[in-house]
Amino acid sequence: MIAHIIAVGSELLTPYRQDTNSKEIARLLMDLGIKVGSITIVPDNDEEIARAVKSAMGRGQLVIITGGLGPTADDRTREGISKALKLDLEFNEEIHQWLKERFKQLNKKEPPDNLARMAFVPRGAEIIPNTVGAAPGLWIEVEGKDLRVLALPGPPAEWKPMMEAMRERLEALGRKDVERRVLRVAGLREAEVEERISPFITGVKNPSVTILASPEDVQLHIIAVSRDPEEARRLVEEMVEKFKEVLGDNIYSLEDEPLEKVVGDLLRARGKTLAVAESCSGGLLSHRITNIPGSSDYFLLGAVTYSNEAKVKVLGVNPQDLEEHGAVSQEVAAQMAEGVKKLAGSHFGIGITGIAGPGGGTPQKPVGLVYIALSWEGGTEVHRKRFWGTRLQIKTYSTTHALDMLRRRLI
Amino acid sequence: MIAHIIAVGSELLTPYRQDTNSKEIARLLMDLGIKVGSITIVPDNDEEIARAVKSAMGRGQLVIITGGLGPTADDRTREGISKALKLDLEFNEEIHQWLKERFKQLNKKEPPDNLARMAFVPRGAEIIPNTVGAAPGLWIEVEGKDLRVLALPGPPAEWKPMMEAMRERLEALGRKDVERRVLRVAGLREAEVEERISPFITGVKNPSVTILASPEDVQLHIIAVSRDPEEARRLVEEMVEKFKEVLGDNIYSLEDEPLEKVVGDLLRARGKTLAVAESCSGGLLSHRITNIPGSSDYFLLGAVTYSNEAKVKVLGVNPQDLEEHGAVSQEVAAQMAEGVKKLAGSHFGIGITGIAGPGGGTPQKPVGLVYIALSWEGGTEVHRKRFWGTRLQIKTYSTTHALDMLRRRLI
Repeated sequence: MIAHIIAVGSELLTPYRQDTNSKEIARLLMDLGIKVGSITIVPDNDEEIARAVKSAMGRGQLVIITGGLGPTADDRTREGISKALKLDLEFNEEIHQWLKERFKQLNKKEPPDNLARMAFVPRGAEIIPNTVGAAPGLWIEVEGKDLRVLALPGPPAEWKPMMEAMRERLEALGRKDVERRVLRVAGLREAEVEERISPFITGVKNPSVTILASPEDVQLHIIAVSRDPEEARRLVEEMVEKFKEVLGDNIYSLEDEPLEKVVGDLLRARGKTLAVAESCSGGLLSHRITNIPGSSDYFLLGAVTYSNEAKVKVLGVNPQDLEEHGAVSQEVAAQMAEGVKKLAGSHFGIGITGIAGPGGGTPQKPVGLVYIALSWEGGTEVHRKRFWGTRLQIKTYSTTHALDMLRRRLI
Repeated sequence: MIAHIIAVGSELLTPYRQDTNSKEIARLLMDLGIKVGSITIVPDNDEEIARAVKSAMGRGQLVIITGGLGPTADDRTREGISKALKLDLEFNEEIHQWLKERFKQLNKKEPPDNLARMAFVPRGAEIIPNTVGAAPGLWIEVEGKDLRVLALPGPPAEWKPMMEAMRERLEALGRKDVERRVLRVAGLREAEVEERISPFITGVKNPSVTILASPEDVQLHIIAVSRDPEEARRLVEEMVEKFKEVLGDNIYSLEDEPLEKVVGDLLRARGKTLAVAESCSGGLLSHRITNIPGSSDYFLLGAVTYSNEAKVKVLGVNPQDLEEHGAVSQEVAAQMAEGVKKLAGSHFGIGITGIAGPGGGTPQKPVGLVYIALSWEGGTEVHRKRFWGTRLQIKTYSTTHALDMLRRRLI
């Protein structure tokens, strides 16, 4: 079963609007065991829509179209489908009545004439009611062919309930169970993760494994497909067990949770509190921690001490050490972590100081050099790291490493 | 002149990778006055690539393909083009030598055999050197047809220099001058901006104006097209003047700069410094300010005082006011701004306290209620705002409003 996705809308071909529908529909189809053969974005034009539909027809069993079902003259999906499938547009009085009623309800005024355009539908099309907006969706099973066309309105709020309503029918087409898991890894680079797991994934198609890396983490997406749901689950479970063996506690989440959430849960479970002092990461660590609802349970204080004076005055960093070793040094990172911990009266303190770039680097202290310190009741440890990338990437790598240091101390 | 864009890569049809190349190329083409007719994403498959190329050929004068030019068996773009254009793949010894040299330089070891795949190019193709990676780009002018095919490697770092190298040739195809300006607006909602400018843009096609809103600002994209560059510039200038009249100093940048950059430049120009105290925005304000290179010139300190204790101890907020009015109050916001200003010894202090949600709201103090204070040598002002959206959106709106308060004080 192969599906082709078509997004209709001239604005989607400009740099100003992104087609996000196709990606979301691809995800839904994957869950139903339906493979996506292509994604095409076409302008509001009968001929272009018809061409895309015809091209998809020869190569798949399902065509899903979003957009172009509204009432204006620019909305051409009905015409495009009609041309591609050679099905005349027929006026449907029932839809027209329903549209007029709905318009009056929603807008408290008489409906405009162009509403009638939405009541013209390709012969034999089944109507999918719109529970949010006006434009109905269309489901067409093409006679004599192993082919279905599903046309949906553009706004996600409108097409999502329609996809849900069609779920059983699409599921029957997929006839497969899909099990998916996302593991998240910290402390290893993408290449290191790949090297360790490659014996298990090379040449293996089911489950399939995708590695995705970002400055925030390395993610392993595992997808198993089977007609038997038990079997799909087992395939994923077995792969997870193998990954656990070679990646160990570098895996920080088996459930696709961000690092700041995992660390927050650990702090809460252990009844511990945290304060952080940032220089080069500039507040991003506090921002990530406080993106988690309920973080006020364990997060007490963040200090973004950008100036040396602030490091001395707020955190109690020794001015002589600043002078001798510079702000970007092991000594200052440690004193920042210890100072903010003491100031906040927290169990843990983190200190980050480095050079985020693009300027400010020297041969001795290049852009990307970052010292990260973790202080707890038993002591203080400092890591010296060299990161690569843009200013924002270096900020992100630094905060990820800091969170991961704390996670390892907590487990 | 119409161009069709094709992105090659099976992974782009899964939910895990997004095709970002096509959007960026569409933007570059727009600057050159070339219209995009369609965007298609196809898997790593000769037939599918060939079909997409052929389909594009009939409807445009330029086909741009990204991806599928590497050395592995999965890289099928050369084969797809060859099939679509009926041009045999020919082995190019010169490219092969260059590839081998480059591989040795970069990897310090002998090149693998599959490198040779990249030396097979469609007959008559012109090679575009890769200044970053290995895979060369291809430029093909199809004989007897008003058609060019440009094939580029997938990674942006590799194709961007190639697009730049081809710029003049593409410009000659566009034969139009495009002038573009982006104005950024703060302090007005999207609907308010639209209402004020609608008399100037309704029914006007050249320049075209697009309004884009986010929690960070409202942007006005103005694009004029003309064969005469002077004329294009004049059209944009006239529209900018009209917008200035109705939007006034709500326009904070005429040059597409982020608010934190504009505010930073104002602080630097006036020789003033800044410290900020955040509660509900959780460090995002510091993060935004420090995303600007050189922000250490004016940014002294950020304090993320999430706990009441930290507000009292670090910022000197009056515990009685905390008790009486609560942490989310005008009094506490003002004392946070004043406290952090005093602590850092800065000219300006900002205080933000509110409820970012999703939990923690009450009928009196609902989610989205935020007090934002600005303190300067002459006094302190506090704004009470009600924002809507997710936790991150409320954090973002709060920091945007704070930056805008400071900007208005500085101008």
